[in-house]
Amino acid sequence: MTNTLYSSHAKFHVAIDCIILAFQRGEMKLLLQQRDFEPHKGTWSLMGGFVEENESLDDAAKRILAELTGLKSVFMQQVNAFGSVNRDSEARVISIAYYALLNLDKYNPELNRRNNAYWENVNNLPKLLFDHEEMVTQALSILRNKISIDPLGFNLLPQLFTLSQLQSLHEAVLGEPIDKRNFRKRINEMHFIEKTELIDKTGSKRGAYLYRFNSKAYRKVPIFKL
Amino acid sequence: MTNTLYSSHAKFHVAIDCIILAFQRGEMKLLLQQRDFEPHKGTWSLMGGFVEENESLDDAAKRILAELTGLKSVFMQQVNAFGSVNRDSEARVISIAYYALLNLDKYNPELNRRNNAYWENVNNLPKLLFDHEEMVTQALSILRNKISIDPLGFNLLPQLFTLSQLQSLHEAVLGEPIDKRNFRKRINEMHFIEKTELIDKTGSKRGAYLYRFNSKAYRKVPIFKL
Repeated sequence: MTNTLYSSHAKFHVAIDCIILAFQRGEMKLLLQQRDFEPHKGTWSLMGGFVEENESLDDAAKRILAELTGLKSVFMQQVNAFGSVNRDSEARVISIAYYALLNLDKYNPELNRRNNAYWENVNNLPKLLFDHEEMVTQALSILRNKISIDPLGFNLLPQLFTLSQLQSLHEAVLGEPIDKRNFRKRINEMHFIEKTELIDKTGSKRGAYLYRFNSKAYRKVPIFKL
Repeated sequence: MTNTLYSSHAKFHVAIDCIILAFQRGEMKLLLQQRDFEPHKGTWSLMGGFVEENESLDDAAKRILAELTGLKSVFMQQVNAFGSVNRDSEARVISIAYYALLNLDKYNPELNRRNNAYWENVNNLPKLLFDHEEMVTQALSILRNKISIDPLGFNLLPQLFTLSQLQSLHEAVLGEPIDKRNFRKRINEMHFIEKTELIDKTGSKRGAYLYRFNSKAYRKVPIFKL
């Protein structure tokens, strides 16, 4: 392939669509935007933007997420590229979907008003623009497949969390109840889920110990099975 | 976003790179092409091509695979989009990697001469062009994660296979020996792996029964755990 060979081929707009997920009171939530412009005004959409000339796909995804959420160091991974010819009704656009896992405590809720955005329960989503529903489905499937073998779920929790919160997160992602005794047994086997001396009393009078994920300790022996 | 908003954004060449995998005599093999043109003449490369105006990413991947292998109904799935700014030394190209799982019996070895192509053991690959090594690594990781929970491995076997072949395939993909007794026990639990009356005598004098994967029976109760 020479440069002239390159130039004989088509070029495409490339977009990024973000599946921005968070966990709140036992529910997995997705950040959606209601379009306030035509076409498809009023339709619910993932948040997104275009890839520019001198940025990588990953950098474009980070930039777009930062523009929309004000957050910079967010866990983000690519889902896949979506490239049906007519997926976007207005023009040929190839879109790369990324999912982002937010700790909701760090998100400024004021932004929702500015972006016409809302957190919606993933089990009760409105009809979405274009192929955005398929993007969400794939992202949730990746999360479901990974949460038991990769510590990415901690990105959805506060830095200090109770074991009930951790179990509730896994249950929300997996969509089924988890046996508490086995779950706690597995947690005990993972030394990088560390008990602190702090107690959270919001859930009960007696309170519950707060734990934290020690990523440094995990990286030394990266075996996760929960 | 209106049409004028689209047109203000950059456009990109989009390529497809194919990680074409096959299984032969206990080894996982990857189809590589040695470039016979500049730049990077002599360097080993995945097989690929460009996405054209009126085709989806999946259709482009199928077309390119068919052009290079003569094969049309091949199991193919997207790995991910690769989009570092300087990944291709000649121009900005975003590449979508797909892995394909071939039954080698269906591949015409004459094509290798025409395409300057070779099957190489995945554990002993030469240095590859651009970011192709990362593409291969990701594809093999997907295969490793899926082979025990999804019947995609049968795409790499002949239609009739012995249980030794099946075990050998799993061992090659996972990169570790498998306990034969447990493996056979799990096979017995999956009614869609069907024993035929045919015997393969190439491996031993007594011979071994040939089995087949019944995809229709699998789809009725799609539970695979091997």
